[in-house]
Amino acid sequence: MAPRKIIIDTDPGQDDAVAILLALGSPELEILGMVALAGNVPLALTEKNTRKICELAGRPDIPVYAGAVRPLVRTLVTAEHVHGETGLNGPALPEPTMPLQEKHGVDFIVDTLMREEPGTVTLCTLGALTDVAMALARKPEIAPRIKEIVMMGGGFFEGGNITPTAEFNIYIDAHAAEVVFASGIPITMMPLDVTHKALSSPERIAAIRALGTKVGEATATMLEFYERFDVDKYGSRGGPLHDPCVIAYLIQSELFSGRHCNVEIETRSELTYGMTVVDWWGVTDRKKNATVMREIDPDGFYKLLVERLGRL
Amino acid sequence: MAPRKIIIDTDPGQDDAVAILLALGSPELEILGMVALAGNVPLALTEKNTRKICELAGRPDIPVYAGAVRPLVRTLVTAEHVHGETGLNGPALPEPTMPLQEKHGVDFIVDTLMREEPGTVTLCTLGALTDVAMALARKPEIAPRIKEIVMMGGGFFEGGNITPTAEFNIYIDAHAAEVVFASGIPITMMPLDVTHKALSSPERIAAIRALGTKVGEATATMLEFYERFDVDKYGSRGGPLHDPCVIAYLIQSELFSGRHCNVEIETRSELTYGMTVVDWWGVTDRKKNATVMREIDPDGFYKLLVERLGRL
Amino acid sequence: MAPRKIIIDTDPGQDDAVAILLALGSPELEILGMVALAGNVPLALTEKNTRKICELAGRPDIPVYAGAVRPLVRTLVTAEHVHGETGLNGPALPEPTMPLQEKHGVDFIVDTLMREEPGTVTLCTLGALTDVAMALARKPEIAPRIKEIVMMGGGFFEGGNITPTAEFNIYIDAHAAEVVFASGIPITMMPLDVTHKALSSPERIAAIRALGTKVGEATATMLEFYERFDVDKYGSRGGPLHDPCVIAYLIQSELFSGRHCNVEIETRSELTYGMTVVDWWGVTDRKKNATVMREIDPDGFYKLLVERLGRL
Amino acid sequence: MAPRKIIIDTDPGQDDAVAILLALGSPELEILGMVALAGNVPLALTEKNTRKICELAGRPDIPVYAGAVRPLVRTLVTAEHVHGETGLNGPALPEPTMPLQEKHGVDFIVDTLMREEPGTVTLCTLGALTDVAMALARKPEIAPRIKEIVMMGGGFFEGGNITPTAEFNIYIDAHAAEVVFASGIPITMMPLDVTHKALSSPERIAAIRALGTKVGEATATMLEFYERFDVDKYGSRGGPLHDPCVIAYLIQSELFSGRHCNVEIETRSELTYGMTVVDWWGVTDRKKNATVMREIDPDGFYKLLVERLGRL
Repeated sequence: MAPRKIIIDTDPGQDDAVAILLALGSPELEILGMVALAGNVPLALTEKNTRKICELAGRPDIPVYAGAVRPLVRTLVTAEHVHGETGLNGPALPEPTMPLQEKHGVDFIVDTLMREEPGTVTLCTLGALTDVAMALARKPEIAPRIKEIVMMGGGFFEGGNITPTAEFNIYIDAHAAEVVFASGIPITMMPLDVTHKALSSPERIAAIRALGTKVGEATATMLEFYERFDVDKYGSRGGPLHDPCVIAYLIQSELFSGRHCNVEIETRSELTYGMTVVDWWGVTDRKKNATVMREIDPDGFYKLLVERLGRL
Repeated sequence: MAPRKIIIDTDPGQDDAVAILLALGSPELEILGMVALAGNVPLALTEKNTRKICELAGRPDIPVYAGAVRPLVRTLVTAEHVHGETGLNGPALPEPTMPLQEKHGVDFIVDTLMREEPGTVTLCTLGALTDVAMALARKPEIAPRIKEIVMMGGGFFEGGNITPTAEFNIYIDAHAAEVVFASGIPITMMPLDVTHKALSSPERIAAIRALGTKVGEATATMLEFYERFDVDKYGSRGGPLHDPCVIAYLIQSELFSGRHCNVEIETRSELTYGMTVVDWWGVTDRKKNATVMREIDPDGFYKLLVERLGRL
Repeated sequence: MAPRKIIIDTDPGQDDAVAILLALGSPELEILGMVALAGNVPLALTEKNTRKICELAGRPDIPVYAGAVRPLVRTLVTAEHVHGETGLNGPALPEPTMPLQEKHGVDFIVDTLMREEPGTVTLCTLGALTDVAMALARKPEIAPRIKEIVMMGGGFFEGGNITPTAEFNIYIDAHAAEVVFASGIPITMMPLDVTHKALSSPERIAAIRALGTKVGEATATMLEFYERFDVDKYGSRGGPLHDPCVIAYLIQSELFSGRHCNVEIETRSELTYGMTVVDWWGVTDRKKNATVMREIDPDGFYKLLVERLGRL
Repeated sequence: MAPRKIIIDTDPGQDDAVAILLALGSPELEILGMVALAGNVPLALTEKNTRKICELAGRPDIPVYAGAVRPLVRTLVTAEHVHGETGLNGPALPEPTMPLQEKHGVDFIVDTLMREEPGTVTLCTLGALTDVAMALARKPEIAPRIKEIVMMGGGFFEGGNITPTAEFNIYIDAHAAEVVFASGIPITMMPLDVTHKALSSPERIAAIRALGTKVGEATATMLEFYERFDVDKYGSRGGPLHDPCVIAYLIQSELFSGRHCNVEIETRSELTYGMTVVDWWGVTDRKKNATVMREIDPDGFYKLLVERLGRL
């Protein structure tokens, strides 16, 4: 089977970095390009971090683009309190030498979707949905050409993380999320309900380090920095590997289970702003527009992760 | 120790009925009166149902008042799809002969609180918070005189029941809930997170029926009718005994555990209207205003329930 | 023709005071009672001010009741910056000796409406709509018995006064207004669009003073204090006599003209909270629920006012 | 004095067409290009209409670009009920032969602003603010380079037109308006308060026709079609020439007067969605961010218009 064509839209972020490495280590995926956007840290850092990770994986050939520098409507909120000042605190990674592509990331998304066969390209979004929303505003014709959007974002039974009800990726551009969830594009959503079960326990980090490779060492160091935030907050054994769930799903979807249902994005109330309202129990007659994952096989997930990181 | 003085505000409803019976069977509680309000079914039915239950328990001496006939601001929503047309479908209970008190239920609440020693009366709310909000609007001086409000209402990690995010009691009068949660009165909240763990399994219903009393038989029959809704919806083993959790907490608080945190009521957005936004993880600096229960010892709860029903 | 039976609900306020005097001087009106509520100043002052004005007019026989001490849902906002610390700054009026009635103002409204023939009693509201909303919550049966509500409140083409879009009476209890405008009761609304055209120019104040009576003198002094706020803000010649428009309409409706149309109350957005959204041009298909006045004959209005004050 | 450099962003629409003609006839303005976007009618029509008008004026050299095909967040609402099916119903204008530029209109705006000296280019927006918001999202650096945005949009004391509170241009993309009004860019706003005073009376249309030119004839015919909507709705003598006010202001600003104040865009409530909340009286401490025009010299305006149309 031909590898699945994907575009990764990302704002590294340590968990974004692990997701990128997982994708680069997986022959089932053909990465057409990566777009970095503002989110966990500002764009100038996320695009550099994306290139750093490509180089760490020995893949300076991957075209990396700069996308949205701020959300559609609101001002940018970042998360240095989680990811550190650089967004990739932890390992000492060299400054990247591979170039940032000149084309705007949104144009790359539009052009790629208009060029490739309809229904063949999957968008993997690891950050806010700004780039996708901007692409849809610029060229609505792309919507039916997208095979699927697999996103890390939202939370329902697990609540939010940046506010009691909102998860960070959706919160920082809830209007973009509103556009995407109303677009009719097939969506698979990895909410906090899943990702909070994919914890980087000491044993799991140890297994990554035990790979004995540069990638393994950098990843382990990254996760040790990253997990402190959630360990402190929740008292959990390790941090949640949010974004790699998106990539793992593309490789081994049976690791996850969920339900096709309606999801609406709250943008009216400040109190619940950015919430992904999931009609899990079907109590409304609103149209089903997303597959919302709720369960994960965390051991299977980490086994896959270690194995794939080992290939780099 | 002198029994704890309580006023029960209720809209029976089978689970309200069980809560009332539990209270009537418990010498730790001195019931100063009961106020029925519109909710699960209209007021004309809830006040009659309240009297029926008092008579079932052989307590026609309990003064029963009629309170709010509709919510503060919005029009009334009822739940016959759960409770049946009478609100108490299931057992055949005779028409009550004990009188409905003439005084308005809101006046009874106000007068009682102004008469009794400050800090001695607990309000147990099993329905919407309309009566409490109306009492506060009429006589704000009652607020510091209330010992505590123990309420069934809301839901957070469990989501809602009437909408994806809202629990019925809060939803039908979210403005009243907003008033109460902003009042500074000590609040203990039994949300769906707790009550969905207090399921009326066949074994538990059987244990109630095995009491061999009129009350046991009626309660068992009531619960068999009532549980079908949640069993169908959630595939659970039995229905959630929401309201009795409020009374059980007053008798045996160690059956429950939770956290003191901030709760805000959503009234701005239609999508999330009536949600109880609980800042469980302390991610905001909003003032803590409620103790939100999350766990219950369900076996201990049903053990208590059977024992107390057996006294009637 | 028998005089028209009215209840005046008020929060004096100098313009409320003039409205009360206008009513007391008009044989076309039979004042069944007055209810004071919190608004321009707290309830303890408004009820006292109401009694002061009755005594100024030589009418200590009018029953005066205390109504709502705060809005239905939100906390009280007052307007001492307009009316002065007492609410009635300006003339030195003696402390009232006539009693405040014991019955709650809301109960007076309910009892009166249930006692009088349906369709015979008009509510004249000069402040927030809290008392009316509380009465409707307590006894919905009163709605079809009310002949009409004639209110001072709102503003549309003129904008607001307390915020860019909201007029004070509606703003301080927008939820109560929402209840009243959804009630189906016939409503005549005197918005800022009218009242800002009823300015107390120096000549008009002089004409009131020229009555040479105690009432004339007190009224003129009152208006001189009161008008400074709007004169400063708008650069207008005098202050707007908001509340007397309500009473003038009952006596001489041809002084006013307007349109029957839909009015909705904004309660969702903080930015436009308390706005009366008037569909003057019929661009929606929302149901017509109020007669919104827009024009006034100000000379005719002041002529009526002087003549009636002269009778006291 | 060198002519003022402008970009016209437009969605013709008959009044857009007249604005374009007014600009083309005015040597004080150097039109760097025009961007058509969806609005009064869909983009495929507005870009064609823009070219038709350029050709009518004998100016096929003007570069015309296609901009936004839909609003940022919501779905498109159009106004064929006002402008007719083509957006330019009335005169029979030939299909345009001049080309539509290949570059996206948003890129044209960005590139032009980055190329020209900062502070030299004025954006004249005659439709929704989508293109400007998209340009700001793509390249925030343009904000301080824009000399001024002169826009037709909003309404305050005059109310709205598409809803009781919202004017069409703002309503169809209120989120874009929110972005623009928060951007810090100098804004001059021509609301309905001004444009409803610029009525195309029969005498004024006759004066345009009397030019005896192709442009005069087409304009007169256009306005006769266009005005029927407002004449029917408001009973006014002629239709409001909204968009030409923007251009007239650039040529002869003394025709207009207004006030620098705060303007906020309502996006939270459905009832008041798209309203431009103008703090005309300074009752809030919100930052002044726009010059809101309220008065126009309509005779001076029409005199200017006829004279300039006569030059084409």
